[in-house]
Amino acid sequence: PEPLRMEMPKKNVPQPANPLKSFNWSKLPDAKLNGTIWSELDDTKLYNAMELDNIDKLFCAYQKNGVTNEGSIEDLRQLGKGKTKVLSVIDGRRAQNCTILLSKLKMSDEDITKSILSMDSKEQLPIDMVEQLLKFTPSPEERALLEEHGDEIDSLARADRFLYEISKVPHYEQRLRSLHYKKRFTITVNEILPRIASVMEASREVSRSRRLRRLLEIVLALGNYMNRGARGNASGFKLASLNRLADTKSSASKGTTLLHYLVLILEKKFKDILRMDEDLSHVRDAAKVSLAELNKDMGQLRAGLKDVTKEIEFHRKQNPVANDKFVPVMREFQATATCRLAEIEDQYQDMKTRFERAVRLFGEDPNAVQPDEFFGIFDTFLMTFTEARQDNENMRKRQEEEEKRAKQEEALKKLTLERKHSREGILSSISKSLSLKNGETTGDAKGEFDD
Amino acid sequence: PEPLRMEMPKKNVPQPANPLKSFNWSKLPDAKLNGTIWSELDDTKLYNAMELDNIDKLFCAYQKNGVTNEGSIEDLRQLGKGKTKVLSVIDGRRAQNCTILLSKLKMSDEDITKSILSMDSKEQLPIDMVEQLLKFTPSPEERALLEEHGDEIDSLARADRFLYEISKVPHYEQRLRSLHYKKRFTITVNEILPRIASVMEASREVSRSRRLRRLLEIVLALGNYMNRGARGNASGFKLASLNRLADTKSSASKGTTLLHYLVLILEKKFKDILRMDEDLSHVRDAAKVSLAELNKDMGQLRAGLKDVTKEIEFHRKQNPVANDKFVPVMREFQATATCRLAEIEDQYQDMKTRFERAVRLFGEDPNAVQPDEFFGIFDTFLMTFTEARQDNENMRKRQEEEEKRAKQEEALKKLTLERKHSREGILSSISKSLSLKNGETTGDAKGEFDD
Repeated sequence: PEPLRMEMPKKNVPQPANPLKSFNWSKLPDAKLNGTIWSELDDTKLYNAMELDNIDKLFCAYQKNGVTNEGSIEDLRQLGKGKTKVLSVIDGRRAQNCTILLSKLKMSDEDITKSILSMDSKEQLPIDMVEQLLKFTPSPEERALLEEHGDEIDSLARADRFLYEISKVPHYEQRLRSLHYKKRFTITVNEILPRIASVMEASREVSRSRRLRRLLEIVLALGNYMNRGARGNASGFKLASLNRLADTKSSASKGTTLLHYLVLILEKKFKDILRMDEDLSHVRDAAKVSLAELNKDMGQLRAGLKDVTKEIEFHRKQNPVANDKFVPVMREFQATATCRLAEIEDQYQDMKTRFERAVRLFGEDPNAVQPDEFFGIFDTFLMTFTEARQDNENMRKRQEEEEKRAKQEEALKKLTLERKHSREGILSSISKSLSLKNGETTGDAKGEFDD
Repeated sequence: PEPLRMEMPKKNVPQPANPLKSFNWSKLPDAKLNGTIWSELDDTKLYNAMELDNIDKLFCAYQKNGVTNEGSIEDLRQLGKGKTKVLSVIDGRRAQNCTILLSKLKMSDEDITKSILSMDSKEQLPIDMVEQLLKFTPSPEERALLEEHGDEIDSLARADRFLYEISKVPHYEQRLRSLHYKKRFTITVNEILPRIASVMEASREVSRSRRLRRLLEIVLALGNYMNRGARGNASGFKLASLNRLADTKSSASKGTTLLHYLVLILEKKFKDILRMDEDLSHVRDAAKVSLAELNKDMGQLRAGLKDVTKEIEFHRKQNPVANDKFVPVMREFQATATCRLAEIEDQYQDMKTRFERAVRLFGEDPNAVQPDEFFGIFDTFLMTFTEARQDNENMRKRQEEEEKRAKQEEALKKLTLERKHSREGILSSISKSLSLKNGETTGDAKGEFDD
């Protein structure tokens, strides 16, 4: 309902020669103008200076020959009909965007209206179209504006006509929102459930993994051995410490960290613990779950269902309208959705309980840590752990190759030496025969082959 | 003070053969381990399997030959001194970054200490260095760790030695923070004052500009003329409406909007209003001021001064230390800063008052609008207004050129026609003379020149 116009009388404003486009301002209520500059202004004295006939021509609500930027096929068709003028009063930009949407939708106003009333029983409105339509619900001002031209509806431009027609659907915007909620419901549920499941599974996994516990035991021993005094003698440590093993670097072996050493010991003495990642398969997905977002999505799911319930109540009290399927369709949806939501709420609470339990199990504070943080620690650790295993493997291979090459060099040296000796032997005997041929005595020369 | 170790006895942990690097974990206090996995783990049984002698070698706190990645010139110098081993117990990454900072600073530990005690009387510590130093204030654990090696301080690596020395300065971190505050004070004030001034000036300007009021009066008249019914008959409108003038597009003249028309009328009938931007010169700067950030900066200024005051009180109660200039230097600073801050607070309150007054003057709600929003409206409007003037100017030029070209075409046509006639005349008389020569009678042929 329009607020009563209190003190100010109707102004003495000249009448335009033809309907004009509107200026999309936001009026200030007269009641609020006391003590403002507005109470001092007097616009009515200005009309003589403002060349009103130019305004009439420039901003005529009728489009020239029915063709403008905002025009559509329908506007052109009207052109053929003996030059019927096209009336456009809605804000230019809004009208343009609305017309674009309608041309994508490819449905007549009548069909759109029927579709809304039946809650899209024929599945003609994809969810993104519904989202777009929500942007073009007529404001009270637009409704009032269009009503004034109720006698010229055939002249209205596409967007104006559309907004006029849907103004007639009672509670149009609320129906559209309900339709949107209904269409999105299953999508949203299918986005929520896997997240809940990951956190629940991961909480179970970290709580139960024996290999994880044995790993922590070993790290505890390591830390107590290396840390003296106040820093040592620990019976437990914060899980984030796991990702600082790599910060302790060897002073003797470049590139080797305490993490590498841990991996080495496990490979030698505690092989089974290397399979820890098999115990924690859901930790990576759980590390991606933001509880804040999950909370927000759950909240929207609940709030939307409340709105639907209120809307059903409203429509039940109305007189039934022909083809209006809102109540039967939405009541059925509401019943199903309420059940589904209750199931999800249960799972959600369950997830939160299990998560808290898991966090406390490690001596951490559930109020101070989110699932993505908590499981992120494990996820990061498993990744760097695997990399360290690879580093160790690479180092072993390099060492093997070193040894192999060293051996080969040794063997080659030995062979070269043997060949050298044997060559010397041959040469020696050849020279001996040569000197025999030359008649030298061989008494003192000891032949190689005589040994 | 270290929390008392309650139930758990000292563990039976083997002693390493030499000091080891530390593992930078976060211990969980024994008191919190009830009901967690930690109470079930027994690390002491694992030591036999962990190859402790390898740990001793790999993670010896002494750097081999005094050369490692974290080494510095000093470490190398110690190398020459008969192979003195360099001891490094601080976390590797932290030690590395600390050493990098110290090499940028190029000051000895003694000089750094003197500088801190004198509150940098010799201006040796640029503010960014102070910010960096704040990152390397020794934690209680580091202090305890370094104390244990108090008998080997000459063997400590650069970073370790630095942290050890500054641990001896009482309230080191607080002194450093006070120094930082002092250095930043003038910078922060010089960032705050211009912002306060812009908003104050802009508030004054919009409140006083007569041209602005006359503009609003004209727009009010325009809007009342174009908007009928519920949308019309306004005595005031929200300022944001100014930036929607351009949304009303002409149906007759492509590219022309209601804003262009407004500019046109001003150019013709209300020329003086075009100089409105001269009245509002501070509006652009004010539109960049975020009140939230200003509040935050003011808050930090106040809080920092409180901390300085507390710190002065603390040091006053201590026995005076040689060369410790904290109290005299900071008392003087505090007196000046308190005055300055009081001045700024006054200006700040003044600014808020004037701003609220300006907002109410236009019938808007000061609780609902921030300075950047409010002045942003004027800033945007002035910009688009200037663009529209330019558009109008360009259109006028095009029209002039059109007319010029049309005139030239006219003139050219006329000239062509005249030449055509004169050429016909010459040809005709030539042909006459030719026929005379040929003996033809010229009786009936009327010579052109006879007219």
